[in-house]
Amino acid sequence: MSFDPRSASPDPNYHRYVSHHANHALMLSAAIKEARASFANSGIPIGAVLVNSAGTIVGRGHNLRVQTGDPIAHGEMSCLRNAGRRRDYQSLTMYTTLAPCIMCTGALLLYKIPRVVVGESRTFPGELDLLRANGVEVNVLDAVECIELMREFIGTHPDVWNEDIGIPS
Amino acid sequence: MSFDPRSASPDPNYHRYVSHHANHALMLSAAIKEARASFANSGIPIGAVLVNSAGTIVGRGHNLRVQTGDPIAHGEMSCLRNAGRRRDYQSLTMYTTLAPCIMCTGALLLYKIPRVVVGESRTFPGELDLLRANGVEVNVLDAVECIELMREFIGTHPDVWNEDIGIPS
Repeated sequence: MSFDPRSASPDPNYHRYVSHHANHALMLSAAIKEARASFANSGIPIGAVLVNSAGTIVGRGHNLRVQTGDPIAHGEMSCLRNAGRRRDYQSLTMYTTLAPCIMCTGALLLYKIPRVVVGESRTFPGELDLLRANGVEVNVLDAVECIELMREFIGTHPDVWNEDIGIPS
Repeated sequence: MSFDPRSASPDPNYHRYVSHHANHALMLSAAIKEARASFANSGIPIGAVLVNSAGTIVGRGHNLRVQTGDPIAHGEMSCLRNAGRRRDYQSLTMYTTLAPCIMCTGALLLYKIPRVVVGESRTFPGELDLLRANGVEVNVLDAVECIELMREFIGTHPDVWNEDIGIPS
């Protein structure tokens, strides 16, 4: 059955769908803003935000390995660090521009963050299966903007990217 | 066959065994020193050192969650951070006073660190099976000093400890 949003009797869940998707797009755009902030400082363009159940961003961060020389400062890790010590992890959603690696996946599992929204998983598949196997809800948005940003970075800095995912050059 | 080290014809591997074990004890004591430094500052007494194939410590660190409010600053993570960006991960050994959690395990797997020596795994079982399943050599020394240090800390700060391993109070 096709659904016409202009219909007088729409799917009762229509507004929930729309608000859900609009929220995903809005929150991913905040993560992309973090990724672009890194890119503007010659860093790896991966960003993340942590969002609570009220839809408020409680932490933001981006990859800082190039900028600070910190090998554990992936986007999601910086975001978790900036969010500080919390008691509400189990009600949060992590938005990240790229599928999380095994380190970031481990951090998400440690703190039992139940939902992860991923900008894209084409550049790097990450550990989405491990997240799902542990009961985490994973949404992949396949966002062209995230894919293009990584393509641009990797094209000019393949060595830095390989180092980021544990491949020695 | 019992082996007498004073024998004129000892097991040809004897010196290798002895130097191996002496090295383990020496490196673990450096990790314990880190754990004690944390404890002295009201922090969680978990420490780690990274050692290269020449037996040189290339990084040290301890849990800093209490001291700096950084939720990702577990002992092994601080050690990796302090060791900086490296190209020799695949020749390193991580010594840690306590079995690594899923976040620290993820970091060890990301950088393909091939050997982990663990002070103890009684207080917390960690993810030793996941490390082994990924080909990491794991040695557990079952060191009383590490066990006692954690017992002393948890006895007085059970809430801080639970938070460290992702259990909300």
